[in-house]
Amino acid sequence: MRVLTGIQPSGDLHIGNYFGSIKQMVDAQKENDTFAFIANYHAQTSVKDGKRLAELTMQSATDFLALGIDPQKSTFWVQSDVKEVLELYWVLSSFTPMGLLERAHSYKDKTAKGIAANHSLFSYPVLMAADILLYQPDIIPVGKDQIQHVEIARDIAIKFNNEYGDIFKLPEYKIEANVATVPGTDGQKMSKSYNNTVNIFGEEKKQLKTIKKIVTEAVPMEEPKEYETCNVYNMAKLFLNENECKELQQRYKKGGEGHGHFKLYLHDIIWEFFKPYREKREYYAAHQDEVREILLQGAHKAKEIVAPTIDKVRTVTGIKY
Amino acid sequence: MRVLTGIQPSGDLHIGNYFGSIKQMVDAQKENDTFAFIANYHAQTSVKDGKRLAELTMQSATDFLALGIDPQKSTFWVQSDVKEVLELYWVLSSFTPMGLLERAHSYKDKTAKGIAANHSLFSYPVLMAADILLYQPDIIPVGKDQIQHVEIARDIAIKFNNEYGDIFKLPEYKIEANVATVPGTDGQKMSKSYNNTVNIFGEEKKQLKTIKKIVTEAVPMEEPKEYETCNVYNMAKLFLNENECKELQQRYKKGGEGHGHFKLYLHDIIWEFFKPYREKREYYAAHQDEVREILLQGAHKAKEIVAPTIDKVRTVTGIKY
Repeated sequence: MRVLTGIQPSGDLHIGNYFGSIKQMVDAQKENDTFAFIANYHAQTSVKDGKRLAELTMQSATDFLALGIDPQKSTFWVQSDVKEVLELYWVLSSFTPMGLLERAHSYKDKTAKGIAANHSLFSYPVLMAADILLYQPDIIPVGKDQIQHVEIARDIAIKFNNEYGDIFKLPEYKIEANVATVPGTDGQKMSKSYNNTVNIFGEEKKQLKTIKKIVTEAVPMEEPKEYETCNVYNMAKLFLNENECKELQQRYKKGGEGHGHFKLYLHDIIWEFFKPYREKREYYAAHQDEVREILLQGAHKAKEIVAPTIDKVRTVTGIKY
Repeated sequence: MRVLTGIQPSGDLHIGNYFGSIKQMVDAQKENDTFAFIANYHAQTSVKDGKRLAELTMQSATDFLALGIDPQKSTFWVQSDVKEVLELYWVLSSFTPMGLLERAHSYKDKTAKGIAANHSLFSYPVLMAADILLYQPDIIPVGKDQIQHVEIARDIAIKFNNEYGDIFKLPEYKIEANVATVPGTDGQKMSKSYNNTVNIFGEEKKQLKTIKKIVTEAVPMEEPKEYETCNVYNMAKLFLNENECKELQQRYKKGGEGHGHFKLYLHDIIWEFFKPYREKREYYAAHQDEVREILLQGAHKAKEIVAPTIDKVRTVTGIKY
């Protein structure tokens, strides 16, 4: 199965990102033909600072390579290095009724939040449709808020195929089952917008400081403690196997240890868990040219893969004269 | 001065096109750095039949070369051969407030006429802004209905320049003075939509038939005739010098000739006027590969000219990572 994922280059990754999507993306490489791109054109709808966007792009590439995107198994590239996507974006625009875009949640949500109502924000789902259809994927793993974008891509593909024959495969979205909800330091879902994240590649001191801030019940040291409702436990269990979970539960039940002890333990297991990724990250951070080379080779591979599709599109729509 | 013109590949050219814009475009080559492109991406907003669009593109190229676009003097290319324009189109979309597009006349006019309200029709002015700004022109010759498009391009350029410094030259529009109003066969302005055109490269029999249909007053043969209000005279004078005009006026005043005679005369002078162009057209029609080669060389020249601008755009907006 060909599986396609777009990565928003949105800065520091946190353990909510890891257990919510990155782990699945990395695991998917075992049995699928996986495609992943850093969506820097999309990021332009919100990031105006060019230097910042360039940094975010390289940071994303470095982070994802460190976390297990394997360029031998996956096609991994930066969106803007396969410019064919913009030609398809324009072509698909003639098969996109305005009503379809006017009904898109993301535009309404973003402008309601006060983000400037620019054309790029409005037309974003058409670019996303081009991103998807160009690569002829079978499956797009999505969060719930992204379902509509895949549906819009399908609608546009159907209209195009009705005119010109079966050029595009109709993509299916897949909502990851078995995705753990990762609590943030305040117990809400971990999210950058709640400012409750534990970052993957932060400094050790900073991580410890963050973890010490995790909200817990006030229970005297010697008394037993609830683990099911404890944010520390619920974060820790993501990193533990069954036996380790049980051991930790015992420590909660037994009493004699405070939440501060559990927090130190949590810090250690997180720090330990990401150790090999951190080392890989340090390597790539010191070898940014190698990262660039990987991205360029990924783009080269992606361009070869899209060539027959864009060629067909140019022929049937008359761009080729 | 750099002068830029976009050519809609809209099929058979008529003498209204010639005296309304083509002649000015050809004349402008003498003293200006002229740029002219066949707007095939734009045409996709209305032409779905790809074979037809490809034909229209080649027909336009052939016609304009025959009528005097000189590839030694002008940069002449097909829009889709300089794909940089699509990247700029996307980038400019983040500097295009939705309100600017919602106020555009052409979208409102076209949808009011029943043309499907697709996204391409709505976003068209942004692509046009990219077409203009990419080439850093001084002057855009326009008809009145196109003024707003140049104004939108200026507005977008100002927003972009405010963010990143003076990347784009602010284009000025120029409404051609001295443009003769060309009457159609029914006396209205000559226009394909009124079905009242005299085509430039039609067959001789067909042209004669069309000219015979020109609406004239019913006046007996022997009586004098009005020339100022006569559609035949008003069409003929476009092709005549002062002396020839006076001679024709005399024939009207003298009486003894019917409108049928003036129509035959009109047919002859039109046929004679376009004779060298027709011969050139026959040459290019028989050498379509040469036309293609001219277009490709034009695109190559255009790409070299836009390279510094698109490079700056990629740097300041962070596409270059």
